[in-house]
Amino acid sequence: MSDLKVSQLADLLQRRRPGYSLDAAFYLSDAVFQSDLKHIFGQHWIFVAVEPQIPEPGDFITVDVGKQSILITRDDDDQLQAFHNVCRHRGSRLCASHKGMVGNIVCPYHQWTYDLKGSLIHVEHMGEGFKKEDHGLKKVHVRSLEGLIFICLAETPPADFEDMAQQMTPYLAPHRLKDCKVAAQVEIVEKGNWKLVMENNRECYHCVGNHPELTLSLYEYGFGYQPSPANAEGMARFRDILAKSHARWEAMGLPSAEIEVLDSRVTGFRTQRLPLDRAGQSQTMNAEVASKKLLGRITDPAVGGLSFWTQPNSWHHFMSDHVVSFSVLPIAPGETLVRTTWCVHKDAVEGVDYDVANLTKVWNATNDQDRRLVEESQVGVASGAYEPGPYSPYTEELVEKFCNWYVGRMRALNPV
Amino acid sequence: MSDLKVSQLADLLQRRRPGYSLDAAFYLSDAVFQSDLKHIFGQHWIFVAVEPQIPEPGDFITVDVGKQSILITRDDDDQLQAFHNVCRHRGSRLCASHKGMVGNIVCPYHQWTYDLKGSLIHVEHMGEGFKKEDHGLKKVHVRSLEGLIFICLAETPPADFEDMAQQMTPYLAPHRLKDCKVAAQVEIVEKGNWKLVMENNRECYHCVGNHPELTLSLYEYGFGYQPSPANAEGMARFRDILAKSHARWEAMGLPSAEIEVLDSRVTGFRTQRLPLDRAGQSQTMNAEVASKKLLGRITDPAVGGLSFWTQPNSWHHFMSDHVVSFSVLPIAPGETLVRTTWCVHKDAVEGVDYDVANLTKVWNATNDQDRRLVEESQVGVASGAYEPGPYSPYTEELVEKFCNWYVGRMRALNPV
Amino acid sequence: MSDLKVSQLADLLQRRRPGYSLDAAFYLSDAVFQSDLKHIFGQHWIFVAVEPQIPEPGDFITVDVGKQSILITRDDDDQLQAFHNVCRHRGSRLCASHKGMVGNIVCPYHQWTYDLKGSLIHVEHMGEGFKKEDHGLKKVHVRSLEGLIFICLAETPPADFEDMAQQMTPYLAPHRLKDCKVAAQVEIVEKGNWKLVMENNRECYHCVGNHPELTLSLYEYGFGYQPSPANAEGMARFRDILAKSHARWEAMGLPSAEIEVLDSRVTGFRTQRLPLDRAGQSQTMNAEVASKKLLGRITDPAVGGLSFWTQPNSWHHFMSDHVVSFSVLPIAPGETLVRTTWCVHKDAVEGVDYDVANLTKVWNATNDQDRRLVEESQVGVASGAYEPGPYSPYTEELVEKFCNWYVGRMRALNPV
Repeated sequence: MSDLKVSQLADLLQRRRPGYSLDAAFYLSDAVFQSDLKHIFGQHWIFVAVEPQIPEPGDFITVDVGKQSILITRDDDDQLQAFHNVCRHRGSRLCASHKGMVGNIVCPYHQWTYDLKGSLIHVEHMGEGFKKEDHGLKKVHVRSLEGLIFICLAETPPADFEDMAQQMTPYLAPHRLKDCKVAAQVEIVEKGNWKLVMENNRECYHCVGNHPELTLSLYEYGFGYQPSPANAEGMARFRDILAKSHARWEAMGLPSAEIEVLDSRVTGFRTQRLPLDRAGQSQTMNAEVASKKLLGRITDPAVGGLSFWTQPNSWHHFMSDHVVSFSVLPIAPGETLVRTTWCVHKDAVEGVDYDVANLTKVWNATNDQDRRLVEESQVGVASGAYEPGPYSPYTEELVEKFCNWYVGRMRALNPV
Repeated sequence: MSDLKVSQLADLLQRRRPGYSLDAAFYLSDAVFQSDLKHIFGQHWIFVAVEPQIPEPGDFITVDVGKQSILITRDDDDQLQAFHNVCRHRGSRLCASHKGMVGNIVCPYHQWTYDLKGSLIHVEHMGEGFKKEDHGLKKVHVRSLEGLIFICLAETPPADFEDMAQQMTPYLAPHRLKDCKVAAQVEIVEKGNWKLVMENNRECYHCVGNHPELTLSLYEYGFGYQPSPANAEGMARFRDILAKSHARWEAMGLPSAEIEVLDSRVTGFRTQRLPLDRAGQSQTMNAEVASKKLLGRITDPAVGGLSFWTQPNSWHHFMSDHVVSFSVLPIAPGETLVRTTWCVHKDAVEGVDYDVANLTKVWNATNDQDRRLVEESQVGVASGAYEPGPYSPYTEELVEKFCNWYVGRMRALNPV
Repeated sequence: MSDLKVSQLADLLQRRRPGYSLDAAFYLSDAVFQSDLKHIFGQHWIFVAVEPQIPEPGDFITVDVGKQSILITRDDDDQLQAFHNVCRHRGSRLCASHKGMVGNIVCPYHQWTYDLKGSLIHVEHMGEGFKKEDHGLKKVHVRSLEGLIFICLAETPPADFEDMAQQMTPYLAPHRLKDCKVAAQVEIVEKGNWKLVMENNRECYHCVGNHPELTLSLYEYGFGYQPSPANAEGMARFRDILAKSHARWEAMGLPSAEIEVLDSRVTGFRTQRLPLDRAGQSQTMNAEVASKKLLGRITDPAVGGLSFWTQPNSWHHFMSDHVVSFSVLPIAPGETLVRTTWCVHKDAVEGVDYDVANLTKVWNATNDQDRRLVEESQVGVASGAYEPGPYSPYTEELVEKFCNWYVGRMRALNPV
């Protein structure tokens, strides 16, 4: 398809039909993609990493958001810092590797040297008039929400992060992610638009037909269902389990009730603690814990899964024994990185307390299944024959909310 | 080169110089390529498959025309059906594989289920107000001409297909392609524009210098020659063989005379039954039949080769023992799929009646030689130094007619 | 980034800040790249090969400048000829291989045959009215400067080549490159804009930190240094060595003084004969000659390195025993070919007088190091966070002159 003009994007946004999937251009157009990078990924808080990736001063990681490489590090005062990974001399990338440890940040080209707070502390040959203080690294906003690292590339980030943090801290704190270590991290590149990846995450209508491993521990009624005489008994039973589980967990000091503000605020999110099937402990092949060292102040392995979904680009499942986090980062209109990180207690010993293959099996399989679904969707919407179709009012409400949030934010930031 | 505006395409079409190859932009420009997909491949009958690929109800194939995936199947009433291979829910591709057999067409994403006539017969969770009858698959026009399957993506296809069918049926019917089976199918991707692939097919000026295998059975005088004292005797001898062969074949009930309407109608085509050299039976390395079971009602192996060329994208050679068909499908301005299919009698037994390597040797070699020629042409015309050069009035008349047809159709569909 | 309009390029050129690196668009934009091909590589003398690559009549090479393939050959009168490598019939590339030997130039498609002066001497089937004399190959200007082959794609090339030739001949002639043979040639593709490749070549600020092999023989003071008490003695010593070496070499008849007209003329260049460290003979790992047969009329191995830099795309080091030449050719906005050619005396015997691994070790290592630096710069400037940074007034003067020349030439050829 030929590409869009900005005015056409405004038209597309205006004529979006509620309850229906988006127009093809939202998944295919390079102009929309550039606008997504600028307005969605450039103006909102995006989830990029977990603190256990950089536990010590000098530890760093780099994260690519579109063409922008961001360097995230922990300084000597134990504070998180984020910078554009670009030398202020002639623009060389500073750190080419995805993770490492440094004393200072030294550009490989001409050895311009910055400290971990981004100040330029050493250069040669630049003459007497050169002012080091004018050539520090460009900073990026960075915040940790109980160990989940969010960055914002905008000059002035959305102010409602603080409120999300206040609401979410009681849910997340008991799992104490900051006291975890990374047990595994996997990156996959899906040949589909980032919004198809997110939409896929926001419904489980596709789970029964596609995710045999995941549905071992997930209750099928937990993600929406059209009521019918045939399923009335099953749904009632699930509602009962949910109510009893929530009562039990709340009594342990584990907040469990749903908060759902996905499309009603700038920093949209949703959370809920959901019971798990079978052993009821963890998203594994037998639903038992994958790591014997329970997290934080949790002592009962059967506390279900606390899920946390954020707009525009993440979801997380906090269980008694491990946390699994997903960060979605756009690469091209039809290419998206999904980075999955599994964390266990920092004192858990591999081979003794946990086995990486067992820990990662469900989500590695599920990610691969979702990758295929996303890729088939990308191929299909690229056909001239695609037209937006209706969402299920029972099972695709959160997809609709993702699209509402996206369209609403784009309209707000793209005045016609 | 920078890309074209639509107005520039109209200019290019207007100033095309008859008798000369096309301007470089026709082979390079993405705007022209999109226009080719829309106007040439989107508005004409295009050859995509043979019936022996889907002999039984439930058999299906998928064919990509540009970004559009088309699903072609045989329904339970033995009728051919063609659909856009796109679910009416959220647009997932329905069938990812190129061929297979199904009872119904089930979308892998959320199991929306369509029957073989394209009706949506089963969905879950869509609520009471949802109307299945509004969400059937989008149909594509499909026609078989004696086993050759053509589709048309336009809402209203060119009406003159019927007339072509009436003229061609007497030529094709004796070979009874519908009673054949596919012995081999090969896809190659040529790094050249689809029009260079077609132009290459429309002349044999290049055959002597490039196709040692093909010219074992082809008479060099059969495809145009500048008369000269040196070749007067050879040409006279060929005319004599041609006249005698035609008389003999017509007496057998095999129409052989040329029909040539390549640039004088919307559904342009050409046919002619031409004698073969040496054993005179088939396009093989020794010009003898490759399959012992002769086709249809043919009993004499030496009936030459009935060639059938269609605009915009196919050619076929029907011989006594096998049919070889070529479908040309554009992928990108500089990338084209050529799918070659060899069919033999459905009762012929591999290893007994025919050997696949022997059957396919001439055209596999020839295709590869043509691929190289097309690719060198693509590289050459991409040079700023290329300018359209003159066609031979003796050996490149059919190339000229291909270009005439193409330019004429584009002018007709692209009013300035 | 979205791409530029021509008017924006003019703006970018106008607002270029002297003393600072270029705006990101100069390295990223496809519109700028096309303009670079048209105005810089299409209107200037560019270095593409050395005469020892085509020593005999009929020898040819092909060189790609953007999408244009150029055929360079030596005709039967021992004259260099350059043509667009495109058949005048239907535009096929004539010679697909990068080098070879031919009697005539025969198009592989329909055997149109041209002699080594580009005249069409044989065609078939083109009819009586066809004029061969109207269909000769399109010529490209070609000049040899003491064995260094430059071409110019413009109709009227810059006239100041002659003056450069007159100034440079006394420097180059003693090494007699025409009496050399090619000992090795290596092509690498760097994932960076061609200007980043050139800028990298125009400074040695990065050498100490990145080129351990090259700096064995290069004096670090030879390429600019900020004076300081700590290095005053070292710089004084280097100035002394330079003065004494120049006196000694001039006495031998080897001109050594700097000529620096990089940004003050259309065909900008610079030359200087610089002493080498350690054994002082050649750019090898021990600074001794790599080939025992000294070049031309040179009898003393310790004559340093005569460097010759040209705008827009080459540099060369002429030593007593070998010549190493670098040709930079743009492929895409972020992709550049660097072709390195090592020549030794034509009578030198491999394995006896020289060893290829030893001859090429320093520059193969250095090229690879530079490739990495260029690629990291390309990644960095592609980040939205890059802004032009200051050049060192001591070590990056020649980078500034390269940019001055580039911006000046673009302004001159792109009237707003």
